[in-house]
Amino acid sequence: MSEKIKKIGIMTGGGDCPGLNPVIRAAVRTAILKYGLEVVGFMHGYNGLYHNNVVPLDLDAVSGILPIGGTILNSSNKDNLFAYPFEEDGKTVYKDVSDVGVENIKKNGIDAMIIIGGDGTLTSGRDYARKGVRVVGVPKTIDNDLACTDYTFGFDTAVSVASEALDRLHTTAASHNRIMVLEVMGRYAGWIALAAGISGGADAIMIPELPYDINKIADAIKERKERGRKFSIVVVAEGAKSKSGEIHVSRVVDDSPDPIRLGGIGAVVADELERLAGLEARATILGHIQRGGTPTSRDRILSTRYGSAAVELVMSGKFGNMVTLKGDEMSYESLEDVIGKNKGVDPDCELVQMAKGMGICFGD
Amino acid sequence: MSEKIKKIGIMTGGGDCPGLNPVIRAAVRTAILKYGLEVVGFMHGYNGLYHNNVVPLDLDAVSGILPIGGTILNSSNKDNLFAYPFEEDGKTVYKDVSDVGVENIKKNGIDAMIIIGGDGTLTSGRDYARKGVRVVGVPKTIDNDLACTDYTFGFDTAVSVASEALDRLHTTAASHNRIMVLEVMGRYAGWIALAAGISGGADAIMIPELPYDINKIADAIKERKERGRKFSIVVVAEGAKSKSGEIHVSRVVDDSPDPIRLGGIGAVVADELERLAGLEARATILGHIQRGGTPTSRDRILSTRYGSAAVELVMSGKFGNMVTLKGDEMSYESLEDVIGKNKGVDPDCELVQMAKGMGICFGD
Amino acid sequence: MSEKIKKIGIMTGGGDCPGLNPVIRAAVRTAILKYGLEVVGFMHGYNGLYHNNVVPLDLDAVSGILPIGGTILNSSNKDNLFAYPFEEDGKTVYKDVSDVGVENIKKNGIDAMIIIGGDGTLTSGRDYARKGVRVVGVPKTIDNDLACTDYTFGFDTAVSVASEALDRLHTTAASHNRIMVLEVMGRYAGWIALAAGISGGADAIMIPELPYDINKIADAIKERKERGRKFSIVVVAEGAKSKSGEIHVSRVVDDSPDPIRLGGIGAVVADELERLAGLEARATILGHIQRGGTPTSRDRILSTRYGSAAVELVMSGKFGNMVTLKGDEMSYESLEDVIGKNKGVDPDCELVQMAKGMGICFGD
Amino acid sequence: MSEKIKKIGIMTGGGDCPGLNPVIRAAVRTAILKYGLEVVGFMHGYNGLYHNNVVPLDLDAVSGILPIGGTILNSSNKDNLFAYPFEEDGKTVYKDVSDVGVENIKKNGIDAMIIIGGDGTLTSGRDYARKGVRVVGVPKTIDNDLACTDYTFGFDTAVSVASEALDRLHTTAASHNRIMVLEVMGRYAGWIALAAGISGGADAIMIPELPYDINKIADAIKERKERGRKFSIVVVAEGAKSKSGEIHVSRVVDDSPDPIRLGGIGAVVADELERLAGLEARATILGHIQRGGTPTSRDRILSTRYGSAAVELVMSGKFGNMVTLKGDEMSYESLEDVIGKNKGVDPDCELVQMAKGMGICFGD
Repeated sequence: MSEKIKKIGIMTGGGDCPGLNPVIRAAVRTAILKYGLEVVGFMHGYNGLYHNNVVPLDLDAVSGILPIGGTILNSSNKDNLFAYPFEEDGKTVYKDVSDVGVENIKKNGIDAMIIIGGDGTLTSGRDYARKGVRVVGVPKTIDNDLACTDYTFGFDTAVSVASEALDRLHTTAASHNRIMVLEVMGRYAGWIALAAGISGGADAIMIPELPYDINKIADAIKERKERGRKFSIVVVAEGAKSKSGEIHVSRVVDDSPDPIRLGGIGAVVADELERLAGLEARATILGHIQRGGTPTSRDRILSTRYGSAAVELVMSGKFGNMVTLKGDEMSYESLEDVIGKNKGVDPDCELVQMAKGMGICFGD
Repeated sequence: MSEKIKKIGIMTGGGDCPGLNPVIRAAVRTAILKYGLEVVGFMHGYNGLYHNNVVPLDLDAVSGILPIGGTILNSSNKDNLFAYPFEEDGKTVYKDVSDVGVENIKKNGIDAMIIIGGDGTLTSGRDYARKGVRVVGVPKTIDNDLACTDYTFGFDTAVSVASEALDRLHTTAASHNRIMVLEVMGRYAGWIALAAGISGGADAIMIPELPYDINKIADAIKERKERGRKFSIVVVAEGAKSKSGEIHVSRVVDDSPDPIRLGGIGAVVADELERLAGLEARATILGHIQRGGTPTSRDRILSTRYGSAAVELVMSGKFGNMVTLKGDEMSYESLEDVIGKNKGVDPDCELVQMAKGMGICFGD
Repeated sequence: MSEKIKKIGIMTGGGDCPGLNPVIRAAVRTAILKYGLEVVGFMHGYNGLYHNNVVPLDLDAVSGILPIGGTILNSSNKDNLFAYPFEEDGKTVYKDVSDVGVENIKKNGIDAMIIIGGDGTLTSGRDYARKGVRVVGVPKTIDNDLACTDYTFGFDTAVSVASEALDRLHTTAASHNRIMVLEVMGRYAGWIALAAGISGGADAIMIPELPYDINKIADAIKERKERGRKFSIVVVAEGAKSKSGEIHVSRVVDDSPDPIRLGGIGAVVADELERLAGLEARATILGHIQRGGTPTSRDRILSTRYGSAAVELVMSGKFGNMVTLKGDEMSYESLEDVIGKNKGVDPDCELVQMAKGMGICFGD
Repeated sequence: MSEKIKKIGIMTGGGDCPGLNPVIRAAVRTAILKYGLEVVGFMHGYNGLYHNNVVPLDLDAVSGILPIGGTILNSSNKDNLFAYPFEEDGKTVYKDVSDVGVENIKKNGIDAMIIIGGDGTLTSGRDYARKGVRVVGVPKTIDNDLACTDYTFGFDTAVSVASEALDRLHTTAASHNRIMVLEVMGRYAGWIALAAGISGGADAIMIPELPYDINKIADAIKERKERGRKFSIVVVAEGAKSKSGEIHVSRVVDDSPDPIRLGGIGAVVADELERLAGLEARATILGHIQRGGTPTSRDRILSTRYGSAAVELVMSGKFGNMVTLKGDEMSYESLEDVIGKNKGVDPDCELVQMAKGMGICFGD
C-alpha cells in the first residue's frame, strides 16, 4: 500500500502544547528526505480543512521551528466538521459538513492525513477514518493523561515550568515563614502537580484523584512549624477536590455560573490554609505559561519521535491508528480503541507512595 | 573615625528580593578581606535585634550564597521596635522597645550597622541613627520605585521572570487567537509592567501612573484583529486603575473587604476584554514568582556593588546615609532625606513615549 | 532482616552529576520519616570512610539541597581503599586498607551503606559487600551508558545544557553562514551527542559507536549549501573516532602524551570541515558545564526515585544490589552482575535510524 | 528636512549579537506606526546593498522576532564596498564599488539608511555619509568596548550566559576540589570577563587590560586551599596577556601561524595552574554560545531603545550620527568622531577596585 503514498497532509487541533512544531518538522523532514513525499498542511485545524486553507510544507517551511512554541499550522478549538456551528436566524445550528473536508483532501491529491490533537480532534480523526480517509493520529495532551501511551510531549515542559516556579517560591517562603500555594494545570488528572511537587520539593500536593481534607494539609503544615520549618510549599492541581465534595470557597461569588473562576482553587486553598495553619499564605496561578514556549530537550526528542513515527505508520499502511510510546519504544494503537480513554494518577502507584514515604502530604 | 571600626552588624528586613544574599556576601567579604573587620548578622530583621539573635558572618558563612534567592539572615515583616506589638489582656498594645536594640548592638560590640530593607525598615534605621547608632542603609525594593537611586537590585530579575512568562504566553496566544493577560507586581509604580511589556512584546500595558479606559485597550485589540493579528498580549500592574476610578469587576464579591483579592486585576481585565473585544481571554497571576529565586547576572553585580559600597561608607565614616546608584556610579544620600520618597513612571518619559511610538496601547 | 536496621550510612564517589543531592535528600527523608532510621554520611567518598569523616544527616541537613548541584557529601576521585596510594620513600605504594573502612562502619553503628557512584565506586562497593558489609548501590553516570538501567540521573540535564548551547549556536550559524561544532561529553558512548543533536536540530552527529569519515560529513554540509542552507550545526562526542582509526589532527602537538588534549576533537573537526566544506567553522567545548549545576525537573524526579528506592532495598534486606530503572519502574540488579557492563548507542536503534531518516548525517 | 523622509532602509553587518532583531523590529514599528514610513531591508549586509538584495519590512515581517537571536536581515563579514574583493586571474583584487551601493539606495527610493554594525560596518557607514547618503548608525559590539556609549546591547546576554556557566562549574569545582577555568570572549577588552566573574563568584579574573603574572593567580589559589577552600574558579578573557609578554603555552604548536588557536588561552591557563597550584584543573571554552540566542530582557529593552532612537534621529534630520546611551538616556554622536574609539576596562575603576576589595585576584 505504501508505494501509493505520494503526498500527505498535516493538521494540528486543540490547545497549545510545547512540541507541536517539532512533530510537524520531524514528519515533514522524514516524509521528504526519507520517502521523497510531498507535504502540505491545513491551517487552523479542521477549519482550514473546511475552507481548504492549504500551505505547502517543504524543508524551508519547517526550518528553525524546532525550539519555537505554538504551531506554525495554527489551531482551532471549535472545529468539529461532523457538527459544525452555523448561525441561522440568530440561532446556532449544527450541521455535518465533513464531506467538504473529504472533498478537500481529495482535491489536493492528499493520500494520507497526519492529525495531531487531543481527544476531540482525534475523535473527528477517527470519524474521517471511518469515512475512508487514511488517517494517522498523533496524541497531544499537556496533562499526560492518555491511557494508551506512557508519556506525551509537552508534559515535561509543563512540569519544568512549574518546578522552576516552585524554586522561586521556595526562597521567598523560606525567608518569610509563609505558605506558598502554586496552582498548576490538571483538571482531571494530577500528573503535573505530582511531578512538579516532587521535583520542586513541595510539602503538600493536592490532586483530583485523591480528594483532600484541608485540615490534614493544615495539620501537616503545623507539624512542620513545630519542627522549626516555618514555611510550606503547596502544589494544587486546578481540578483538586475536597473530600466532602463541597468547594471550600470562603467568599462565595453567588451569581457566577463558575464559582471559582475568579480566584481559582489556588486562591481558595491559600485562604483556607492561612486561617487553619496560622501562617500567611499566598497563591500563584501559573495558567497558560505552562503550555506555551520552547519545549524542553526531552519534549523536543519525544515529539520528534512522534512525528517521525507517524510518517512510518503512514508508509507501512497502518491507517486508523495513533502513535504511542510504550516504555521507551514507539508503537501504535487503533483510534477506535483509544478515543476517550484517560488515565489518572493511581493513588497506589510508586510515585505517590514514594512521595508519601518522604513526608509529602496529599490530604487524603 | 573609620579607624575605630572593628566589628559591624548586618540585618535584612521586609519582603524577599533577589540580590539580598549577594549584598550580604559582598559586605562580609569586603569587610573581612579588605578591612580585617569582624562581621555578625541579626536573624529575622529587627526581631533578631530585639531578641539578640546573632550569628557570626565569616567567609564560610557567605560561601556559595551568591546565586541563592532569599536571605540567609531571614527577614520579618512586623519588626518596628519603635512601635512593637505586644498582646496584653487580649489586646494589641504597641510599645517602643528600641532601646533593647541599641543595648544589643552595644552588648555585641558592634561599631556600625548595615541595614538592608525597604522604606519601613530604613525608617527604623533612620530612627536608630537618630539615637546615635552608626547606621548605613541599603535600599531594597523589587519595584524600582525609589526616588534617589536609578536602579535597585531585584528589579531586573522580576522583569526577566515576567518577560519569560510573556514569551511563553505569546506562542499560545498566537496559536489560538486569544487575549493573554499577565498580571505583574507594582502596586504603586508601573516599572515592572513597563519594562516587561517592552521586553516581552506586549500590545498593551496598564500601569498605576496612567489610569486606563478599558474601551481604549479593547479598541486597540480590535484594530489589531482587523489588521490580521488575531491575538493580543496585555501586561497589567497589580495597582493599575481605571480612569473613572471604579474597579471594573464584572462579578462583584460583595461581602469582601478587598473586592479584587480573589481574582486580582488580571482576572478582571481579562473578563472585560473578552466581553469588549470579542476574543477569548485568559489571565495569569505571576505573584511571588517575581520576587524569589536566583538573581540575574545584572542583579548580582548590582547587589554586590551595593553591599561593597555599604562597607566603604562605613569605613569612611559616612553614617546616617543610604547607598544609591546614580547613572552608573555608586553614591549615597542621607537617610533623613530619602525616607518616603518614591518615584513612579513619568508618563512623559522616553520609555513610555517610545512604547507609544511603537504602537503599544496604555489605555490613557 | 529489615527490623534490625536502625542506622544507615550514605556516601558519594566519583565525578559530579546533577541529581546527587536529590538522591541523598530522598534517602534521608525516606529513612527518617518513613522508617524512623538514623542517617549519617561519609564526606569525600571512600577517603572519608578511611578517615572516619562522618556527619549526621537529619532533615535539616538535607533541607534546600534539591535544586543545588554537586553533592553535600563531597566526592573524591582516587578513593579505592582496596588499593590506596601511599607515598613511601618518594614512591607511590598501594595498600589494601579496606579493613579500616569496615571498622569505621562498625564503630559508627551503621547497619547498612548506600553507596552512590560510578563503576569504580561501585566496584569497591561490591568488594565491601563481599567483606560482609550490607551495601546498596545507586548508579551515577552522566553518560547514561549503564547496561542494566534504562536511564540514569544527570543525563537529561547534560542533554538540556548541550541543547540550549545548540539553540544559541544556531542563530549565529544562520546569521553568518558558518559551521558550528559543539563538542559534548561522551568518551565511550554517544548518548549525549545523539540526544542533544536531535533536540538541538543538528545536521551532523559524530559518536564513538559510529566511526566517521570526515568527507561524508563535509559532503552533507556541501549538499545543504547547494540547497541554500549555508550554515551547519555539528555535534561531536569527545570520544568520536574517524573510520581510518587515525585522529585527524591538522596541527599535531608532537611531544604531548595526549595529542588532542589542547584542542580537543571539536577543534580538530572544525578545522577539517572548514578546509573540506569551504565554510568558516568554529568550535565550542562545553566541558564540565554539562555535569554541574541545578538538575532538570526530570533528573530531580529520577534521582529522588533512586534515593527512595535505595532505602526500600535496604529495608527489604536486598543487599549487594544496585537500584535500576526498567521502563518506568524502579528495580534492582546484583552488584556482582552489573559491574563493568556498559551500553553504547546501538547503530541500528530507533533513535539513530529516525535521525538518519530526518537527514542527520553520522558520517558512517 | 524630516518632512521629506518617506522611505528608509535598514542593514545589519558584522558578527552576531543578541538584540539585532529587536533593533530592527523597533525601527520598523516606530517608522510605520508613528511616522507612516515605508521600510525595506538589505539582506547580507553590504553585499546585499551591492547586489540590490532588498526585502520589504512591514509589521508582519518583524512580528515574533523580538525573542529570536541572530538577524532576519542576515549579515556578512567581508562587506566593505569601498574595497571589495574580486578574483581576477587567480588573484584577489580590491575595488571601490561603493557607487553601486549609492545607486541602489537611490533606485529603491530610500531617503535614509539605518546601518547597524560594529566598527568596520560603521566606518563604511561614515564613508557613505561622506558620499551624501543620509546615514544613522546603531553600534553593535558584544564586548561593550565602545568609547562613546555606556552600554551596548548583547553584552548583558553574553555576561548572563557566562555567569550561568560559572554557576554550573561552581558545583563541580566544589564537589571535586578542582580549578575550573572558563574562557570568555574579549579579545581587546575585559568587560565580559569582569562582569561575569563578579556575577559568577570567580576567585580570579584575567583581562587584557591587566597583564597577569600566573604565579600570583596560583598563589591566590594556594592561599584559598590553606583556608580550606579547595576549589577555585578562574575567568579568563580570550585576549588576556601575561606580564612578561610571552604566552604561557606549555606545549607549543610550532608550525601554526596562530599558536594558541587549537587550545586557546583557557586551556593554557588551566595547564599552568594545575602545575603551579597542585590541583586538577579543567578548561571550558564558551565560544560563540555567548553571542547567539535569545537576548536577556535588559538587552531586549536596550536594543528596542536603540532601534526606536535611530528612527527619531532620522526624523529629526540628524544624519551622519550614531545612537548612543549616556547614563540612562538615549543620545547620539557624530560618526566622524566615534569610529575607532574603543574603551577598555580602566584598572582603577570602581568595579575592579571593588572586586579586589572582595578578594578577587587579577594577577597584576
